[in-house]
Amino acid sequence: MDRRNFLTAAGVAAAGAALTAPAIAQTAPEIKWRMTSSFPVALDTIYGGGTTLAKYVSELTDGKFQIQVFAAGEIVPALEAASAVSDGSVEMAHTVSYYFWGKDPTYSIGSGLPFGLNARQQNAWLYHGGGNDLMNEFYATQNLVGFPSGNTGCQMGGFFRREIKTVADMKDLKMRVGGFAGTVMTKLGVVPTQIAGGEIYQALEKGVIDAAEWVGPYDDEKLGLVKVAPYYYYPGWWEPGSTVHAFVNAAKWAELPPTYQNVLTVAAQATNCDMLAKYDAFNPTALKKLAAAGAKFTPYSQEILEAAFAASNEVYAETSAVNPAFKKTYESMAAYRADAYLWAQFSEYTLDTFMMGQQRAKAL
Amino acid sequence: MDRRNFLTAAGVAAAGAALTAPAIAQTAPEIKWRMTSSFPVALDTIYGGGTTLAKYVSELTDGKFQIQVFAAGEIVPALEAASAVSDGSVEMAHTVSYYFWGKDPTYSIGSGLPFGLNARQQNAWLYHGGGNDLMNEFYATQNLVGFPSGNTGCQMGGFFRREIKTVADMKDLKMRVGGFAGTVMTKLGVVPTQIAGGEIYQALEKGVIDAAEWVGPYDDEKLGLVKVAPYYYYPGWWEPGSTVHAFVNAAKWAELPPTYQNVLTVAAQATNCDMLAKYDAFNPTALKKLAAAGAKFTPYSQEILEAAFAASNEVYAETSAVNPAFKKTYESMAAYRADAYLWAQFSEYTLDTFMMGQQRAKAL
Repeated sequence: MDRRNFLTAAGVAAAGAALTAPAIAQTAPEIKWRMTSSFPVALDTIYGGGTTLAKYVSELTDGKFQIQVFAAGEIVPALEAASAVSDGSVEMAHTVSYYFWGKDPTYSIGSGLPFGLNARQQNAWLYHGGGNDLMNEFYATQNLVGFPSGNTGCQMGGFFRREIKTVADMKDLKMRVGGFAGTVMTKLGVVPTQIAGGEIYQALEKGVIDAAEWVGPYDDEKLGLVKVAPYYYYPGWWEPGSTVHAFVNAAKWAELPPTYQNVLTVAAQATNCDMLAKYDAFNPTALKKLAAAGAKFTPYSQEILEAAFAASNEVYAETSAVNPAFKKTYESMAAYRADAYLWAQFSEYTLDTFMMGQQRAKAL
Repeated sequence: MDRRNFLTAAGVAAAGAALTAPAIAQTAPEIKWRMTSSFPVALDTIYGGGTTLAKYVSELTDGKFQIQVFAAGEIVPALEAASAVSDGSVEMAHTVSYYFWGKDPTYSIGSGLPFGLNARQQNAWLYHGGGNDLMNEFYATQNLVGFPSGNTGCQMGGFFRREIKTVADMKDLKMRVGGFAGTVMTKLGVVPTQIAGGEIYQALEKGVIDAAEWVGPYDDEKLGLVKVAPYYYYPGWWEPGSTVHAFVNAAKWAELPPTYQNVLTVAAQATNCDMLAKYDAFNPTALKKLAAAGAKFTPYSQEILEAAFAASNEVYAETSAVNPAFKKTYESMAAYRADAYLWAQFSEYTLDTFMMGQQRAKAL
C-alpha cells in the first residue's frame, strides 16, 4: 500500500462523514486552523517551511483555508508540539518527529535515524517505499496524521571546543545534541544535554558544555558558535537527511472536506521539495562565511564513525526487541537503505566525485 | 527575484484580465485542458509524472480543472511537444526542456546540462537561486511558462556493445544519445543518432549503432538492451539530474484564475518531489535485475570524463559567444554549481561514502 491508498481510505471516511453536512461544507468552507512550529522565526529555512505550507494552502483555496503559524513557545513549547496536536489543543504542528522519541522511539524513524536515510532516500522510502503508510499506522495511535513537509539535508556534526580524534576523546564530553541521537551518544561515553538554541553560545563559551550541534551551515552561522568552538565537525551522522513533518490532529483531519485533505497533502509535498531546495541554495554561501570566520572543518575519524554506527545498531536492536511498531518500521527502512546505498554508489556518486575534483581544481 | 515574485507578477496580470469576466469565472470555473507528454505510457516514472500532475490538479480543484494527458505521438510527436504549446495547439506539455535545444540551446539549461547540476542542485538553483526566473525570461520568448515537474536523478551512461577505455575508443562510435549532449559527443568523435525508444534494441542488435543511452536502471531494464549490449556505463555525465518540465502556453496561463495558477504551480512542485522519489525507490531493485541479466557495470575512465568535461566547456563558451540568453542563464547556473560542489563534499558526501562502505561490507 502506498501513500495514496492511505489517503484514499481517509478520504472515503471523510466523504462519508460529510454526507450529513450542507452542500457548501463539502466543498469550500472557510476554515481557520492554528499550527504550532517547533522552531524560532529566525530560522527562515525550517520555520519558513511552516509558513510556506500555510501560504500554499491559502493560495490553493482562494484564501478559504487559513493556517496561522506560531513560532516555538508562542502557544506551545517546541518539544510539546506533537502532544498539543494529539490532544487537540491545536489542529496542526510543524516539527521534527524525532523530538518525540521519549513518548515512543518509533517517532524517530519518521524524521530519520542516525545512519539512516539521506534526504532523497527519505523521500523515496516515505512516498514510494511504504514509509508513510507505516509511519501513519504509528501516528494513528497518537491521534496524528503525518505529512513530510520539509527536509534539512544532511546536517553538520557540531561545533567542538577541542579536537576529538578517538572514541576515548568522547568520554564524558558534554554535548548539546537533540533527540534519539543522545541515546546513541551515551553509548559512546558522551553526556548529552538539551539546551535551547538561544542559550548554546553562552554554555559553550563558559565551558558548561564542550560541544553543540545545531543544523547545517546556514542555520548554524546565525548562532555564532564558531567564535567559541571552532572545530566544525562533519558528517552529522545522526541526521543524514531529517524530514520535517506537518502533523494534523486525526479527528480534525477526518472533518476536513476531501478537497482540503488533498490541498494539505499536495501542499506538504511541495513544501518538502521547497525547503530542501532552500537549504541547498543557502548552505554553500554560509559555509564560506563560516570558513572566513575561522571554522576548522574537521571530519569525524573512521574509528568514531564505526563506533557510532555499531552503537546505533545496538540501540535499534534493543528498541526492536521491546517495541513491535519500531521493529516493523525500522526493518522496512533498513531493507530499502541497503538497496539504496547499492544504487547510490554508481551513477550520481561517481559523477559528484568527479565534479568535486573539478571544484577543488578550481575548474568549475 | 525568486520564483514567487515571478508568479506574483503573473498573478497580478491574470487578476487584471479577469476583472471583465463574470464573478464565477474568477474563482472555480470548469476547465478542460490537454497535456501532451513526450514519453510513452510504458515509462510509468517519467510519463507518470504527467498523470500525477493532472491528478493533483484535479484533486485540488474538486475535479473542476481537468488536464487530459496524451502519450508521446498520440496528438503531438515527442520532440514537438514544446512547439505545440508555443503555438497554442495544446495548452500544456510534460517534457524535457533540452529536447528543444535545436530551437535554442537555452532550452537545455532548464533540464540540465552535461556536467551541470545534480537533482537537488537543480531544485536549489531553480527555486531559490534565480534559475526559474531566468528560464522563464527565456520561455516567455517562446510563448511558454515553465514549471519544474519531475526529475530523473543522475542517469546511467548507456549500454555499449564493447568496452571503451580511451577517448580514441569513442572515435566514430555510433551512439543513440539525445539532445544537446550530442553536440558534446561530436567533439569526442562520436556520431550521435536519434532513434525512438522502441527501435533501439534492434538497432543495437544489428550493429546499426554501437551504443545507446536511455535513462536509468528502472526505465532501462524495460528495453532489454543488456542482452545485446552488456557494458552498462556510468555515470551519465550528460544528465546529472534532469528536470522534467510542465510547459503552459503563455496566453492560456494568463487566462487562468489566480487560484488555478497557484494550483498548477504547487501541484508541479509536489510532482517534482514525487517523481524523483519514485525513481529513487524503484532504481535499486532494477539495478539488481540488470546485474542478474548480465550487465557489466563499467565506469567511464577519468580520461574520458576529463575530455568530455573539456568538450562541454568548449560548447558552452561557443554558445555563450553567440547567444546572450544562454550566456546569462549558464553563468548563473555555473556560479551556483561551484559553490554547491564545495558544500556537497562536506557532510552528505562523507556520510554517504561511509554508508557505501558499510553496504559493500554487507553491514546494512
